[in-house]
This record gives sequence, C-alpha cells and structure tokens, in this order.
Amino acid sequence: MSPEKIAQQLVDLCREGKNFEVAESLYSPNVTSTEMFGDETMPKQMTGLDAVRRKMQWWYDTHITHATTYSDPLVAGNHFAVRMTFDVTYKPTGQRMMFEEIGVYEVKDGKIISEQFFYSV
Amino acid sequence: MSPEKIAQQLVDLCREGKNFEVAESLYSPNVTSTEMFGDETMPKQMTGLDAVRRKMQWWYDTHITHATTYSDPLVAGNHFAVRMTFDVTYKPTGQRMMFEEIGVYEVKDGKIISEQFFYSV
Repeated sequence: MSPEKIAQQLVDLCREGKNFEVAESLYSPNVTSTEMFGDETMPKQMTGLDAVRRKMQWWYDTHITHATTYSDPLVAGNHFAVRMTFDVTYKPTGQRMMFEEIGVYEVKDGKIISEQFFYSV
Repeated sequence: MSPEKIAQQLVDLCREGKNFEVAESLYSPNVTSTEMFGDETMPKQMTGLDAVRRKMQWWYDTHITHATTYSDPLVAGNHFAVRMTFDVTYKPTGQRMMFEEIGVYEVKDGKIISEQFFYSV
C-alpha cells in the first residue's frame, strides 16, 4: 500500500475508534514509537509491535475517552502527519483533560515503521 | 504571537521565498534544528539561530531553487506541521532533484524553539 493509502486508512480507522486495528493491520513488527518525554508508563522510545500494543492497552485501561478528532493526513513522500485531539478522563485521578498533538508516521515497504508524537504538557 | 499566527506567517513568508526572514523574525535565539541524518554539511542536530542561518546559507549557496510548495499548517497546541516540496538543482553535481518533507515546529513564548524535518533519501 502507498503512504497515501496507509495514511488515509490510519485516519479512517482512528475516527471509527479502531486504534488497535491500526496497529494490527498497518504497523511493522519492528515499529518504533517515540513520545516527547519518558516516564515509567510511557518510555520516550519503544521498539516493536508488542511494545506498542502494551502502550495502547495501558492508555485504554487508564483513560475514559469522551471524544477524539483526527485531521486529514498531510503526506510527504514516505512520511505523513496527523493532528489529533483528545478529550479524556484519567481514571486514577478522575481528572478530565483535553489535549492535542501532531503524530508523524514513516512508511516503508507498505507498513508503518515509526510513529512520533509532538505535544506540550 | 499565537502558534496559529506564527504557523501562518511561516507559511506565508516561505511561499514568498522569504525563508531567511522566517528565521530572523520568528525563531528563538536558542532554536534547535533536527534533520533525519547527519553529515559534515548538515549535522543531525544544531542549536542556535546562528547555526540555522549557516545551514540556510549553505543550502542557498549550493542549490538552485526552481519551485517550492508549502501546505497550510496543521496546528496542534504549541506544535505545527507543514508539508513542503522542493524542485532544486544541486550546484556541485548539476543534479536536479524533487523531494518532499514534513517540517514539525514547536512554539514557546511567541517564538519557534525547534524545527524537525522528516524525509527519505
């Protein structure tokens, strides 16, 4: 699949709330996932689909999702960027938070080989 | 200036070919600039407006620009992404190249404090 098609599929699936399906169908087994900062639950960088699955599982276990939005993708060569917004409640504290970020993805051989997220805290 | 206004100004100035003016008017003195890879002319990461100026000067000294495009910015909080395309000739070899990339910028206190570029070679 071309980067354009993968980008559109990622956005379509995320808009339907099928984020796990994104990982299963579009990600390389050796994908790297990079956050702005690292802590014990979310390291700055993880490698491998299993690590991404665990991070997603942690996210859904600890957050109630009220609403999300995903922009159309901005595709340039093998990379694409998506703007995302999240309205969630962090279960351990009950704190409701709204935040937004840019995700940048790289495609190689028809699979996503990296994701990197840009946001402020 | 808000991240939205800075993002729009960056795109407006780049579309007019005023890339140096972007650095002079919108960048923090302590900006960091990150490429995909490093070599002797373009290190993977540079810090400081002077370093950015030198990198831009090297670019314009060694490339003839035939055409560029800049997408509207995708703004999320303090970050924004822009898709860029370049049609240039590398002077030392005479090779004409077309390439595209995603630039991701971070704004703090009304100035751009980082730029990072995503592309394939």
